[in-house]
Amino acid sequence: MTIYSERLSRLTHSLQNHGVECICITPGADLIYFTGYNALPLERLTCLAVRSNGDAFLIVPHLELMAAQVHQPEDHGIQLVSWQETENAYELLHKLIGQANVVAVSDLMWARHVFGIQKSFGLNVSLAESIISDLRAVKTQEEIQAISEAGQAIDEVHRNISQWLRPGRSEREVGRDIADAIIASGHRTVDFVIVGSGPNGASPHHDLSDRIIQRGEPIVVDIGGTMPSGYCSDSTRMYSIGDVEHEFMTYYSVLQSAQSRAVLEAKVGMSGAEVDALARDVLADGGLGQYFVHRTGHGLGLETHEEPYIVASNSKPLVPGNVFSIEPGFYVPGRFGARIEDIVYLTDEGAVSVNHSPRDFVVLD
Amino acid sequence: MTIYSERLSRLTHSLQNHGVECICITPGADLIYFTGYNALPLERLTCLAVRSNGDAFLIVPHLELMAAQVHQPEDHGIQLVSWQETENAYELLHKLIGQANVVAVSDLMWARHVFGIQKSFGLNVSLAESIISDLRAVKTQEEIQAISEAGQAIDEVHRNISQWLRPGRSEREVGRDIADAIIASGHRTVDFVIVGSGPNGASPHHDLSDRIIQRGEPIVVDIGGTMPSGYCSDSTRMYSIGDVEHEFMTYYSVLQSAQSRAVLEAKVGMSGAEVDALARDVLADGGLGQYFVHRTGHGLGLETHEEPYIVASNSKPLVPGNVFSIEPGFYVPGRFGARIEDIVYLTDEGAVSVNHSPRDFVVLD
Repeated sequence: MTIYSERLSRLTHSLQNHGVECICITPGADLIYFTGYNALPLERLTCLAVRSNGDAFLIVPHLELMAAQVHQPEDHGIQLVSWQETENAYELLHKLIGQANVVAVSDLMWARHVFGIQKSFGLNVSLAESIISDLRAVKTQEEIQAISEAGQAIDEVHRNISQWLRPGRSEREVGRDIADAIIASGHRTVDFVIVGSGPNGASPHHDLSDRIIQRGEPIVVDIGGTMPSGYCSDSTRMYSIGDVEHEFMTYYSVLQSAQSRAVLEAKVGMSGAEVDALARDVLADGGLGQYFVHRTGHGLGLETHEEPYIVASNSKPLVPGNVFSIEPGFYVPGRFGARIEDIVYLTDEGAVSVNHSPRDFVVLD
Repeated sequence: MTIYSERLSRLTHSLQNHGVECICITPGADLIYFTGYNALPLERLTCLAVRSNGDAFLIVPHLELMAAQVHQPEDHGIQLVSWQETENAYELLHKLIGQANVVAVSDLMWARHVFGIQKSFGLNVSLAESIISDLRAVKTQEEIQAISEAGQAIDEVHRNISQWLRPGRSEREVGRDIADAIIASGHRTVDFVIVGSGPNGASPHHDLSDRIIQRGEPIVVDIGGTMPSGYCSDSTRMYSIGDVEHEFMTYYSVLQSAQSRAVLEAKVGMSGAEVDALARDVLADGGLGQYFVHRTGHGLGLETHEEPYIVASNSKPLVPGNVFSIEPGFYVPGRFGARIEDIVYLTDEGAVSVNHSPRDFVVLD
């Protein structure tokens, strides 16, 4: 019996004692306690659901699957299930759990998940949603200025990456130096540092590991922080030390076309779905559709992820002042991954990128 | 019209358009957007409530009042109201807002607040609460070992504080060095660094400012982080550079008696309220009762604040394996503040502190 299966067994007894049929637990200390999984708190639902009969499911967004598998939930009697970007995760949860009349949720679960779960189980409640997000999604000139300054700061870090990215160093060592540079460039906090070398690049939200960086492998560097203004940066560029294999470079040129097309052609009045398709279609035409496993982008402002989402399920028209990422990628499990990400703001003339570091694949020596 | 009153006015219109009578917003980006206040996300309710008629209230725990006042909510048409440690904040919120049938909450509000608000407005729902917290509150030997290691690591930082705490440096400069030392001592993350010099010490959750540290003033240093094990540290000690005024030292000796009494006399079977009284009575007898504005402690484990809470409203008996802080203090507005904090675990023989750095007031030169 593992420490987590033992804890789950105590949880099951506790549910029986309390007359609760099912408990739902989202990222945070409760989830760590029962699974060891320190999951990212995301607007996408990650949820451990445990029934009083002992059945346990961990549902995660597809792009978190590799991160969740590290904790081998099956060893603790938990069935791991991933959901695709356009699926309704709450309905999937309900389907897995089955009928339940008394459902409890973890104390720190976000309201959006509380209500998502309540709705899928047949109750009717209300969330802020567009009451606030429609306001926050339309940025003023001052806000765009602040986001542009964040973009300049993170560009500066990308331009200096050759100082830290060297063969023989681990992702974690490189990541630590990048974190220092994010602060030195003017950010108030470091929000995330992803250095995904070789096969680690195939997990979109891989952050840092002790893996030693090798020559000739593609490296995803996706970094961001929050400025003293409160506004965020977020930019991804691709690097290698020495040349990488020809096949990867062929894929990369398709990716670069997909990303630049979406930036050039995104327009006011298009939906998030239409902008998503601008990039997705190029990757599909290039034979890479199956490897682009996430949405094309997310809004950015005071939070790194906010409205509007550039995803196939978003049919709402974009308006001037919207700020969002355009970040298509491809992820080939066990081999490599790649992503190019800019933050853009929308004007009546089109999308303007706040990031200006080169988008070409950077080969260091 | 300030930027925030303008945003609140747009929010009011949005509420009217959506047919929502009131919206409740807890700490996070939404609260920053409407008030500029980057409040700590706490189990204690901080909430901006806005009615569709334009009435706006910001309710905060009493010990956050100074931090909230910095943002001058009244200038934006928001009435600031604080609540005392043993009050029901949700009922206070309901009283301020009045009757409302359609209430929305911010998307990232914690479930505990969602349900607290729903309950005060007359609905009936369910939260995890003791189903999970009763499990997590009883630590195993391995967990106590991990928390003890965190205690040793933070003790090491306190023992070296003279390297960084020097007159002429700002709280922020000192805080940055302490943050580095928290990592160097073995923590994985820095969770908080409070350096409250002179009058800043009178705000219990003051963190860091550009105030220059002076000779002869008391300095609160309250620091903590999370270890690679996932378990937290949290310890407060008091310092000065050069001697401080006699009156403060008289108060300090009362505080030291209060803190050590609670550690020595806390026992299995006592309630959180009874342990709280052990410290509170000593401060009251010493004439300092009015200056001790917060509870005596909080549980600690995977989170810095978790069950059991050592507060007058907690009548549940403590059990072996409970881990919590004992941290009485006194706060004299405009002058100074002080706190002594240890993390203890409870055994059948009493409370054992995991912190061992000296509790005497430390005068550096």
